[in-house]
Amino acid sequence: VTTRAEAERLDAADPLAPLRDLFDLPDRTIYLDGNSLGALPRTTAARVADVVTREWGRDLIGSWNTAGWIDLPRRVGDKIAGLVGAGPGELVVADSTSVNVYKVLKAALAVAAADAPGRRVVVSERANFPTDLYVAQSVAAEHGCELVLLEPGEDPADRLDEEVAVLMLTHVNYRTGRMWDMAAVTAQAHERGVLTVWDLCHSAGAVPVDLTAAGADYAIGCGYKFLNGGPGAPAYVWASPRLAERFWQPLAGWMGHAAPFAFATGYEPAPGIGRFVSGTPAVIGTAALECGVDTVLAAEPYGGMAALREKSLALTRLFADLVSESPLGGPDGFAIESPLADAERGSQVCLTRAEGAYAIVQALIARGVVGDFRAGQDGLPDILRFGVTPLYTRFVDVWDAVEHLRQVMGTGEWREARFDQRLAVT
Amino acid sequence: VTTRAEAERLDAADPLAPLRDLFDLPDRTIYLDGNSLGALPRTTAARVADVVTREWGRDLIGSWNTAGWIDLPRRVGDKIAGLVGAGPGELVVADSTSVNVYKVLKAALAVAAADAPGRRVVVSERANFPTDLYVAQSVAAEHGCELVLLEPGEDPADRLDEEVAVLMLTHVNYRTGRMWDMAAVTAQAHERGVLTVWDLCHSAGAVPVDLTAAGADYAIGCGYKFLNGGPGAPAYVWASPRLAERFWQPLAGWMGHAAPFAFATGYEPAPGIGRFVSGTPAVIGTAALECGVDTVLAAEPYGGMAALREKSLALTRLFADLVSESPLGGPDGFAIESPLADAERGSQVCLTRAEGAYAIVQALIARGVVGDFRAGQDGLPDILRFGVTPLYTRFVDVWDAVEHLRQVMGTGEWREARFDQRLAVT
Repeated sequence: VTTRAEAERLDAADPLAPLRDLFDLPDRTIYLDGNSLGALPRTTAARVADVVTREWGRDLIGSWNTAGWIDLPRRVGDKIAGLVGAGPGELVVADSTSVNVYKVLKAALAVAAADAPGRRVVVSERANFPTDLYVAQSVAAEHGCELVLLEPGEDPADRLDEEVAVLMLTHVNYRTGRMWDMAAVTAQAHERGVLTVWDLCHSAGAVPVDLTAAGADYAIGCGYKFLNGGPGAPAYVWASPRLAERFWQPLAGWMGHAAPFAFATGYEPAPGIGRFVSGTPAVIGTAALECGVDTVLAAEPYGGMAALREKSLALTRLFADLVSESPLGGPDGFAIESPLADAERGSQVCLTRAEGAYAIVQALIARGVVGDFRAGQDGLPDILRFGVTPLYTRFVDVWDAVEHLRQVMGTGEWREARFDQRLAVT
Repeated sequence: VTTRAEAERLDAADPLAPLRDLFDLPDRTIYLDGNSLGALPRTTAARVADVVTREWGRDLIGSWNTAGWIDLPRRVGDKIAGLVGAGPGELVVADSTSVNVYKVLKAALAVAAADAPGRRVVVSERANFPTDLYVAQSVAAEHGCELVLLEPGEDPADRLDEEVAVLMLTHVNYRTGRMWDMAAVTAQAHERGVLTVWDLCHSAGAVPVDLTAAGADYAIGCGYKFLNGGPGAPAYVWASPRLAERFWQPLAGWMGHAAPFAFATGYEPAPGIGRFVSGTPAVIGTAALECGVDTVLAAEPYGGMAALREKSLALTRLFADLVSESPLGGPDGFAIESPLADAERGSQVCLTRAEGAYAIVQALIARGVVGDFRAGQDGLPDILRFGVTPLYTRFVDVWDAVEHLRQVMGTGEWREARFDQRLAVT
């Protein structure tokens, strides 16, 4: 692809192109940040309005039964299960990613303590998303365990000795987009007697995931990225059926009780994954999440996750190629931090540059090209991050985004002071 | 009050009557279940629609800054703080009540372990809301502590010996509406070296609360009852400023980090109550909650919480009087389980009856009188529960509700089989 017209032809030939109409996208914006906050599905506003005005406003408390509020964590959970290779009834929507990381780490350590009491190490990776590390740090401290962090490039297998209880990895790294081979890593872990926790925040709805085929033990993920569930959407949690009932998770709220409306004094955990629900479900947020999940399920007639993946790879490959083949990858000093091998790359491309990453991202945003900046830490570089969502990202969007980046560098506008005022961005 | 006309006159003379217009209430419904799910404020639908279509749909990720999403937990927390006698910056909106109970119990036990390591008992009450007990059971088990439950009528002071670390009570009981004297019980606890955790689910927005004056240690509460925040609204958590920074709470998510967007590998808790935030805030739910909290704040020009309390007591007193003075309290066999002394009663009246509590509640609901049923357990009786919300409940609503109850008993319609099919109701 060497001209914009060629990118347009790719869009014209794209069988998934009609799916873009499932979203309300703002004019004059090239949105490459669906890996942080997915775009608004067209159905969400009406669905949320109906939940608010009819289910809540008119039917009030009766909606726990008549509108099925009480079943929301399981019903929407079942839909997500279908996207990550989990069975019906194995996954629930609940709480936030951070809270769910806590639940599964505690559950995994309880299993490890019973099966292999000498194992007192949790392994994760330094480049993992901070909330996973913070919660792991907290849980490890509570249990007198050690948290060991893999350095970039380190093979987990080299660290999984007989002291390790749990390996917790994010399937697709939030910074680089590097994707682990879930089946291979899980098999290595199991060979060494180690349980696995997979964070699917950047995977569900973005890349094919098959928790069952991989033999994974626990998984969690968020609703507001590629699942398009809206800002702060509820998260989800899965435990392998062979493990779900082995212990309580400690956030033993009433909605995880076997009979919440019996108002029994003593806790009795619900069967299976049901016990990973804690408090009253976030009804409005879960209803919005369902609309988002439905946009991914709407790809089924078009080839589903496999077709989305194929398009995602074509989009990210185009982005990487355009950067490499232009002055950007040469005199402008950008390097592609994301893996170039398709099998190792999620649904984003991330770039590094010796200076100006933050300001360059801001200058692009001022032009309507929305990617994001992630600060480097602990030897990791600052990055410019560009996510593609095959449901709505077009090949011309990638072409235009790279063209804008060329112009931002060519004009030097990124050096303007207004682009270097750091704000909190997620 | 012996006629409906007298009740109408009370409404006509009620200075708070205009506040009812803040709500979208369904026709032909007498809603006495705002203690389970508050009614829909008139502003909520438009506010939620704006969050969805403009803040999310149009401005996308930029809304973390431009719409102030990042500040929501603190901004709405400050509003709630004003309703419960907490200072600005001392209370945050986060997660569910169940999850927040876990946080504060863990924090309290960490403080107790440091200050009084021999204390290994958590005291609560058998009649507490189950989720509090379940989480307390879980936390006690994790810490090798014992959970001791007060029986109904038992004085906490009698059980607060030198082995007790924490006393956790719900300020207004969810079943009976019985209200503890927070200041007196907290003082007794402190005299005995015991920390206090107060559940304000049935208090905030319903009765005056002054955490600071009471010298309380920790408090949590939900957003969807008298705060009118909507189904599954986010909850809130408060820690006394003298305790907030003593320890982490263990759900150490990135939004409780001192600098979440630095993406540091190591956890460093935010100052003060900020560390009790865990994951990404539920933006849509928190925006809806803010509309609900604003309905309570709208009473300020009318005398605020004191005026709401006065009306609430008049309403519940009328309800109890009408039941006592009619055949309901005699031949029909109802007993009033809620305290008759104003100082001991929250914003509800609960009734017991030897049989039929569930079916009677259902028969009332079929007539449009929405109270609820709470199953008895462990020696506690089944109850019929009727909440009043002085923002929107009228004196004629109470009159009519009791009249319907008379008719349900007089006709015997509650014995119809259709009223005894138990459904899950919250």
